[in-house]
Amino acid sequence: MDRVRAGDLRALSRAISIVEDRRPDSTAILKALFPYSGNAGLIGLTGSPGAGKSTLVDQIAREYRKQGKTIGIVAVDPTSPFSGGAILGDRIRMQSHYADSGIYIRSMATRGSLGGLASTTADVATVLDASGRDLVMIETVGVGQDEVDIVTLADVTLVILVPGMGDDVQTIKAGIMEIADIFIINKSDRDGAERVEREIRAMQSLAVRHNNWTPPIVKTVASDGTGVLEVVESIEKYREYLKQGSLGRNRRVENWRKRITEMLRDALFQRVVTDYLGNGEAERFAVEVAEHKRDPYSLVEQLVKEVGKHA
Amino acid sequence: MDRVRAGDLRALSRAISIVEDRRPDSTAILKALFPYSGNAGLIGLTGSPGAGKSTLVDQIAREYRKQGKTIGIVAVDPTSPFSGGAILGDRIRMQSHYADSGIYIRSMATRGSLGGLASTTADVATVLDASGRDLVMIETVGVGQDEVDIVTLADVTLVILVPGMGDDVQTIKAGIMEIADIFIINKSDRDGAERVEREIRAMQSLAVRHNNWTPPIVKTVASDGTGVLEVVESIEKYREYLKQGSLGRNRRVENWRKRITEMLRDALFQRVVTDYLGNGEAERFAVEVAEHKRDPYSLVEQLVKEVGKHA
Repeated sequence: MDRVRAGDLRALSRAISIVEDRRPDSTAILKALFPYSGNAGLIGLTGSPGAGKSTLVDQIAREYRKQGKTIGIVAVDPTSPFSGGAILGDRIRMQSHYADSGIYIRSMATRGSLGGLASTTADVATVLDASGRDLVMIETVGVGQDEVDIVTLADVTLVILVPGMGDDVQTIKAGIMEIADIFIINKSDRDGAERVEREIRAMQSLAVRHNNWTPPIVKTVASDGTGVLEVVESIEKYREYLKQGSLGRNRRVENWRKRITEMLRDALFQRVVTDYLGNGEAERFAVEVAEHKRDPYSLVEQLVKEVGKHA
Repeated sequence: MDRVRAGDLRALSRAISIVEDRRPDSTAILKALFPYSGNAGLIGLTGSPGAGKSTLVDQIAREYRKQGKTIGIVAVDPTSPFSGGAILGDRIRMQSHYADSGIYIRSMATRGSLGGLASTTADVATVLDASGRDLVMIETVGVGQDEVDIVTLADVTLVILVPGMGDDVQTIKAGIMEIADIFIINKSDRDGAERVEREIRAMQSLAVRHNNWTPPIVKTVASDGTGVLEVVESIEKYREYLKQGSLGRNRRVENWRKRITEMLRDALFQRVVTDYLGNGEAERFAVEVAEHKRDPYSLVEQLVKEVGKHA
């Protein structure tokens, strides 16, 4: 793990692969690297498909680079559970553009079979963090609970909207309204940017936040870099804000509370699958239930009681 | 529960609310009703936002009604984890149109705080099934793993596409390609319907299926009813197909295998939250980890070992 910590890119890529695939030595790697994590700023970005996230993330990373910061990017695409993410094609192409080793991009196209995607993403971010990156950006498509879980594990959450995406996007907006620390209206040279801004303001008046921060709205045109510096300034302003009092600490504690709970659930699940549903028992139970010889609710109660008897 | 089984709508609504909210008597209700479930045909429908799912589900339900069948509909909208689903406004309005008690619609806008959405949806479907409905239709937005889990718990899965929704929809398509038993191209009077059909055919040549069924492609215009009878015929054809050999049984066994595993995980999780993360322990662990005094990976290993010692 010394090579990961020294910033060796091949060692980093290998470690991330092991963690992403939840291979047996995954936990050992994470245990070894965890003490060196906690220094990077974690930035989460989400928005609908087509909001221009990749381009914007790219521009933000370049802006930070100008300021001498090193960046790790985790791009998560959970929309494609089976086939593995066409959107990420962009990301993979983009990676090859970086001669600069100060920007490292990792695409996560598929879910690991074990553990949740949010948990895996957090662990990958921990590896990047421990490798000495100043900033770790986590990018995902904001459509469901998983994605909300992913971006909220960051210190700062950016929600990216675009003008003129219709009513369904309104729904998505409503869902992620509460998690935004900063709003970005990308493609803001299009018609309707003002309307999106008004809608955000209207929603803000209804939203309940845990602190006194009013999320700023930054307008960008990521394709030509317009507004990107302002985004970076807003991120830094929020990070400064978090340092006041115990806000930043509280957020990390709250995130860890969620993560520990998740991790515990996943770990227990693994144990249950091995101890109670291995050796064809899952199949046998499923047959009995499908044939209505057994009700699944009583079965599960009984299995939960069993847990530990053989501990 | 006799009144639920007798088809009493108020008793049914009340039972579903209890199950959806995972109230204390939820398990008792499910245990009581489970023996009477298993007779309804379960039909899952998914598609992108804007694909016209609500209208199509409505039309399919009316077509089945003409044939004298009773229908339960569970409309799940997981895109809006916080605010509770604007899309479902349509559904609620639609419900009021039914003077006919033979069609019962239930909207699930929010996730229960306990247990997964797929699990809750399955349980609600079980209640509808036990109440004597001939068919239970489960409708969701096909964007993530949760939604895939939801529709795959049905006997028959319909994937609804529309012409001209751009590249992001292609990604979604790729993700749900493998789960479709029947494809529907809705709004097929629009330009591009032929192209969507060609794309499905092209993808079908690559997809791996567990049986020899080639999913038919049915073109509809849900708003005027075009193609709806053909959809119903395709569903019935597939249900007949499932009765051949052990296909239908295998599918239900496989679905129950997944559900039992999920249910067991959720139940264990509840127990862990109570036994190990109650009384401020979650907070204490989170603080220790956030302050890097403890690594979360070792902590979780230790907690898993503890489970059962106090059983």
